[in-house]
Amino acid sequence: MVLAHAIDAASVDGLEGLTIGRLADASGHSKSGIATLFGSKEQLQLATIAAAREVFVDRVIAPARARSERGLDRLVALISAWLEYSDERVFRGGCFFAATSVEYDAKPGPVRDAVVAASTAWEDYLTISIEYAMAAGELPRLEEARQLTFEIVSFLEAANTRSLLHASTEPYDRAAVALRSRLLDLGGDPDMVASITRTATAA
Amino acid sequence: MVLAHAIDAASVDGLEGLTIGRLADASGHSKSGIATLFGSKEQLQLATIAAAREVFVDRVIAPARARSERGLDRLVALISAWLEYSDERVFRGGCFFAATSVEYDAKPGPVRDAVVAASTAWEDYLTISIEYAMAAGELPRLEEARQLTFEIVSFLEAANTRSLLHASTEPYDRAAVALRSRLLDLGGDPDMVASITRTATAA
Repeated sequence: MVLAHAIDAASVDGLEGLTIGRLADASGHSKSGIATLFGSKEQLQLATIAAAREVFVDRVIAPARARSERGLDRLVALISAWLEYSDERVFRGGCFFAATSVEYDAKPGPVRDAVVAASTAWEDYLTISIEYAMAAGELPRLEEARQLTFEIVSFLEAANTRSLLHASTEPYDRAAVALRSRLLDLGGDPDMVASITRTATAA
Repeated sequence: MVLAHAIDAASVDGLEGLTIGRLADASGHSKSGIATLFGSKEQLQLATIAAAREVFVDRVIAPARARSERGLDRLVALISAWLEYSDERVFRGGCFFAATSVEYDAKPGPVRDAVVAASTAWEDYLTISIEYAMAAGELPRLEEARQLTFEIVSFLEAANTRSLLHASTEPYDRAAVALRSRLLDLGGDPDMVASITRTATAA
């Protein structure tokens, strides 16, 4: 699949480094075939983001859904699935969205809009999961569930970047410690919270 | 100064997008003059990182040093100075090191090594500040000061990326809330901790 190569390359070199020529080389398809398929570099970039969103749903959202009902257990499953997705290098350069968010954060245009939409969808999903846990009485009714979402994604993305930068799994342990401690402080069930570890349990 | 243009451009387009030709256009110098000065693209990238480190010291480390002695007060001053440095867009694309860390996290070579060294120096400085606060009895003797360093940089970098992505200052408020709450939970002096706000006090 051509787009699998594109996602993998973009996770390392960025979406800006993605060209029809380089993708032809990496995937073994002809340049004209790929040009016909995608039309322009921008269309190729947008198709790559859409494909990466599908992989993210398959690897993070779906396993967490399969593993648990709503509430704190679902939230914990989402966090664990994300750590596993990053740690297992589903994409060669770590989380595709962490990489492309930073690449496009200061560059307006349709590619940035698509990256923002993907990142917003993930944060909204986390926020809804927090709100379910609050509604179930498993977490206190925080004034703003989005504050906790911010804190969770901060730890996840820092773990992703630092594990790549230092070629070490230690940042995943640090993120797991921080996440467990935050959820315990909020009164989260210790057994549920304890399942957040670097090596996430299989879905 | 040629390197000021280089840092600014790299904060938006990355160090990979930095070429002698583009820098000549942006700075108004001749291409051959810049080529003579830096020799190769890699030398230009390394000089840009060194120049960005100087700016970081001027804008973050020096003001915090001037404002406060060792201990929790220094730590709080460092955090506030970092938020201000990012929020004021000292570099057009936000924190130079946040951008280039993610750009190079999966690309081995001398440029990555220089980015890792810069990021390690900053984290070491934060860790030492935490250790001073612990030695002064202002924070509990955590087993690992580096865990708190990880949490602090997680919030700072997430605020930087998200404020750029969403063109909003709200992420700085979220980071300030998270940082104050973490330091208060550890028993930090409320008056000192309260000085961590989005709009940092001038040094």
